[in-house]
Amino acid sequence: MTVKQLSLPRLVYTCAQLGVPGVGLWREPVRAYGVEAAAKLVRDAGLSVTSLCRGGFFTTAEPHARVKALDDNRAAIDEAATLGTDTLVLVCGGLPEGSRDLAGARERVADALAELGPYARVRGVRLAVEPLHPMYASDRCVVSTLGQALDLAERFPAEEVGVVVDTYHVWWDDLAPAAVTRAGAAGRIHAFQLADWVTPLPEGVLTGRGQLGDGSIDLRDWWRRVDAAGYTGPVEVELFNEALWRRDGVEVLRETVERFRSCAP
Amino acid sequence: MTVKQLSLPRLVYTCAQLGVPGVGLWREPVRAYGVEAAAKLVRDAGLSVTSLCRGGFFTTAEPHARVKALDDNRAAIDEAATLGTDTLVLVCGGLPEGSRDLAGARERVADALAELGPYARVRGVRLAVEPLHPMYASDRCVVSTLGQALDLAERFPAEEVGVVVDTYHVWWDDLAPAAVTRAGAAGRIHAFQLADWVTPLPEGVLTGRGQLGDGSIDLRDWWRRVDAAGYTGPVEVELFNEALWRRDGVEVLRETVERFRSCAP
Repeated sequence: MTVKQLSLPRLVYTCAQLGVPGVGLWREPVRAYGVEAAAKLVRDAGLSVTSLCRGGFFTTAEPHARVKALDDNRAAIDEAATLGTDTLVLVCGGLPEGSRDLAGARERVADALAELGPYARVRGVRLAVEPLHPMYASDRCVVSTLGQALDLAERFPAEEVGVVVDTYHVWWDDLAPAAVTRAGAAGRIHAFQLADWVTPLPEGVLTGRGQLGDGSIDLRDWWRRVDAAGYTGPVEVELFNEALWRRDGVEVLRETVERFRSCAP
Repeated sequence: MTVKQLSLPRLVYTCAQLGVPGVGLWREPVRAYGVEAAAKLVRDAGLSVTSLCRGGFFTTAEPHARVKALDDNRAAIDEAATLGTDTLVLVCGGLPEGSRDLAGARERVADALAELGPYARVRGVRLAVEPLHPMYASDRCVVSTLGQALDLAERFPAEEVGVVVDTYHVWWDDLAPAAVTRAGAAGRIHAFQLADWVTPLPEGVLTGRGQLGDGSIDLRDWWRRVDAAGYTGPVEVELFNEALWRRDGVEVLRETVERFRSCAP
């Protein structure tokens, strides 16, 4: 998503050229290209798919919409399995239209995880609950802190449900470092993503993630912390940024690789 | 601030007309009008000043800027005393320019409270640390949760330092209800403010607070919770909203009073 201006083949080719060993993919471009074809494309280039983004959006209380959401999540699990990644990132969804019942919406997330976990496990896919920054609580994700995501995950086996640590979403939280340690000890850090925090935030606050090093987050410190918690998986960079999307994708990818290396512990 | 389009006399007159018994003031219009004159204006109308907004912005590590910030806060405390309010709201400040040291900035907040608390106490003014929504952590306030604000406050006597509970800032936080109870039991809820959460957020995310009832927050539930924690102080409404500021101020004030009554427990 960091360089969504690149086609899938161009992305994979450029990653291989730059020595990037794996790539996190989003469902929409994968489905447009064909899931099997995308899997082959990445595999043939000698890369791995680090994660698939995203399932989730299952906070609705309306029975038909709920069935549809769970079906869509099962499809996402199948796609992850086909791509050969063991990690499906979940953005759980916001409050249903007109609702003010945050606690209820959070409980429906747990219900969905209970239903999807075993289905995912059989296919070798782990569900990774991503806590999103609290500014998305009403419209994108009712899971707002790492501690809360972990509380949810711990109701299920670690092979089924874990969490995503994304610096953009957790950097402000004084309780997040302890949650990282706790998640690492339990083998529940299923993905680790980097993005920097820059202001002013754009309207809608969705596309203002900063290039690594441009913002307020001590990324090296977070990376060290996640390492120290025992995480040995891939480290992803996920930027949504209009200015980066307007630039040449290959150039952005090259810059991102440099920034990535310069903030590594 | 909800109706900043109104002059101070017009604000006070309209509050009295509408049966609003008190008004929270901001420093800038008060200083422009004259602090003594503003105090007399409010008193003569039979109203009280519920709180003064705001001190704070003392996270800088630079010695000269720090002295200046503390001096300004002492001035704010004096102004609060002159206005006859016992509550000075503190917006503590963000990360200093170029800094990524959140923990350090938070420690400087504690240092400032230690210095200002006794000065305020002598003047009958309590410092009210307002945790701001985490989306302001880098540029406005490094104190991001009610629990964190309370941890800070509890290092000092309750007569000196307490917290502000503002629904806009805390509504998403599953740990905030317990913090409200804890703060109430300790006599540390120094102010309670209402605003609703509406999306999409505007650029800069400062002026998008929703009119009561327009958004995602169960305001009655929060009000009940703060009541149950033993809070008996004023309930303020603080909206920053470009659309409300463009409308006729008296009409907005009337609407706000209606909404306020309809979300009271």
